[in-house]
Amino acid sequence: MARALRLAERGRYTAHPNPVVGCVLVSGGAVVGEGFHAKTGEAHAEVNALQAAGDAARGSVAYVSLEPCSHHGRTPPCTEALIKAGVRKVIASMEDPNKDVAGQGLKTLADAGIEVQTGLMQSAAVSLNRGFLKRVTEQRPLVRLNLAASIDGAIAMAGGESQWITGPEARADVQRLRARSGAIMTGIGSVLADDPSLNVRAMDSETGGLQPIRVVLDSRLRMPLAAGMLALPGTTLVCCTGDPDTNALQNMNADVQSFPALDGRVDADAVLRELAERGVNEVLVEAGAALAGDLLEKDLVDELVIYQAPHIMGSQTMGLVNTPSWTALSDRQALTITDVRRIGGDTRITATPKQSD
Amino acid sequence: MARALRLAERGRYTAHPNPVVGCVLVSGGAVVGEGFHAKTGEAHAEVNALQAAGDAARGSVAYVSLEPCSHHGRTPPCTEALIKAGVRKVIASMEDPNKDVAGQGLKTLADAGIEVQTGLMQSAAVSLNRGFLKRVTEQRPLVRLNLAASIDGAIAMAGGESQWITGPEARADVQRLRARSGAIMTGIGSVLADDPSLNVRAMDSETGGLQPIRVVLDSRLRMPLAAGMLALPGTTLVCCTGDPDTNALQNMNADVQSFPALDGRVDADAVLRELAERGVNEVLVEAGAALAGDLLEKDLVDELVIYQAPHIMGSQTMGLVNTPSWTALSDRQALTITDVRRIGGDTRITATPKQSD
Repeated sequence: MARALRLAERGRYTAHPNPVVGCVLVSGGAVVGEGFHAKTGEAHAEVNALQAAGDAARGSVAYVSLEPCSHHGRTPPCTEALIKAGVRKVIASMEDPNKDVAGQGLKTLADAGIEVQTGLMQSAAVSLNRGFLKRVTEQRPLVRLNLAASIDGAIAMAGGESQWITGPEARADVQRLRARSGAIMTGIGSVLADDPSLNVRAMDSETGGLQPIRVVLDSRLRMPLAAGMLALPGTTLVCCTGDPDTNALQNMNADVQSFPALDGRVDADAVLRELAERGVNEVLVEAGAALAGDLLEKDLVDELVIYQAPHIMGSQTMGLVNTPSWTALSDRQALTITDVRRIGGDTRITATPKQSD
Repeated sequence: MARALRLAERGRYTAHPNPVVGCVLVSGGAVVGEGFHAKTGEAHAEVNALQAAGDAARGSVAYVSLEPCSHHGRTPPCTEALIKAGVRKVIASMEDPNKDVAGQGLKTLADAGIEVQTGLMQSAAVSLNRGFLKRVTEQRPLVRLNLAASIDGAIAMAGGESQWITGPEARADVQRLRARSGAIMTGIGSVLADDPSLNVRAMDSETGGLQPIRVVLDSRLRMPLAAGMLALPGTTLVCCTGDPDTNALQNMNADVQSFPALDGRVDADAVLRELAERGVNEVLVEAGAALAGDLLEKDLVDELVIYQAPHIMGSQTMGLVNTPSWTALSDRQALTITDVRRIGGDTRITATPKQSD
């Protein structure tokens, strides 16, 4: 199963909006076939493994990181393929909560006389597909907040002077975060200040050229027609409030959509629901202090990835997040640190917010 | 030699103001004796190793982490003991720059017909005694700045609300930093706000009850007569400017001394020179943003030990260091990270300032 989970990861840049899945077929103590799901619309992990095994699949045990599908989607159901190949037993790490599956896959197999089992290495399997699972169960994508600051939490000088805070290795690492995300979200302030591209660069061999949706939260529709990202391949979703004239921006290839307002800003949660509708499993937020603080204040962040540069920038600086409502010590956000490692000259801290007291 | 260096470390809480030194005697491929310098006034590492070896010292090779002394201090010269014991060869990691030794030890041994060699694992030996070496060569102690903050660099809420930022393991770790220091320095602001003890607690078995000098930078002599630290064993040095009436404080057991003023504060460099005079090898600074920032602005910090608590405290907070003169990005202090590790729930980052551009 560990091997199936590792295989699954090979789809991390390309499988979304589908979950990543790996499958290993074992017969007589030996692996007779393995596969993973590479891309939506292409063969599922089980089918790839069965093809690799050929006749050897008969009587084998299938280890699969997620319950096999039982419905006709873009590809025929995997249950059918497993039954037809004569697999003896199917061990799935976890059930697929997707309403089209949700136990039906395992039931179909059991009804066909195949022994089934679930739960093996389940927490690892859950962790692989956190975004997909959140989307199908909560109708929101996983929200990953990317922050970069000095060791004392500054992102720029008070006068606005700034430049890359982190080094080239950290920035390359962010490219990998972008590539696994279905969308990259930022605020209009960042667009006006930096005109970012928010695209995935130099990873075509791994992503097949797939680009995440670029999402700009822009309550008053200040998006410049000349914004660099509008000229790039892929979708730019500009999220405004009210009913402004959107023609000019739409002519520049922007997808402009109006959302409810909340506290004078675009209701970020409404945007997240829309992204889930569009099949986004994971959103990477690359934003300034305003949007980053807003998402933290509203408990909408699932994971933080903080790149800390080895500098003390001091007191005449701007901070990482703007959280005007956090006025008491008890308002602070406690984190569970899940990983700390050196990326080039910087330190990358991965953390999840603890539930509020 | 690696063993001699490890032995040397065993004196880290007790040897100061002397350097830590370890010695291993090897004869016929086997260790025949070893020792370290435990405490000023007691036997040096070489003498302890020779005593352990007894007659087996004759014809042996001595690996010692620092050049043996050749002068009559509180104990007779180690060179004499090594010669008398019939040691064949002495390998010292580094020369002792202390003017009473400074190559004389090695020369004395060579003159007595003993083969001598230096430089083996020298950088490790230098690193062991950075404080001692800085004191004897620059007449200043090593300055280690201890900071504790949230992951976004906050130490308290803007309104002043604060509590322990870091966990009990990090605070126990700070006790070890205190125990290896000859002095602990703070600012009068911290004394007035928190009435800290700045003593070493629950480590008597390792320190023999030795307490660092407590140093309070207090330009206008606002030190309260009731400050808790004045009632504790050991010395409290209150550093003021000008010529105030110091009688009341001195009656409370404070050692009050006037220093030059610089930028309206006590000239911290003058205080450091005084501490070196008093035999302090390492100073631990546990201070608020004002003194911490002042020392960084004046390039007086040799090492930073930053404990980061797993919290985002947000924007309505007070920062780690107050550096009013750092107004441009180029003023920031670049760091070389030398160690990152988890201490309980916190992350400890050890770093040294890079030389300014």
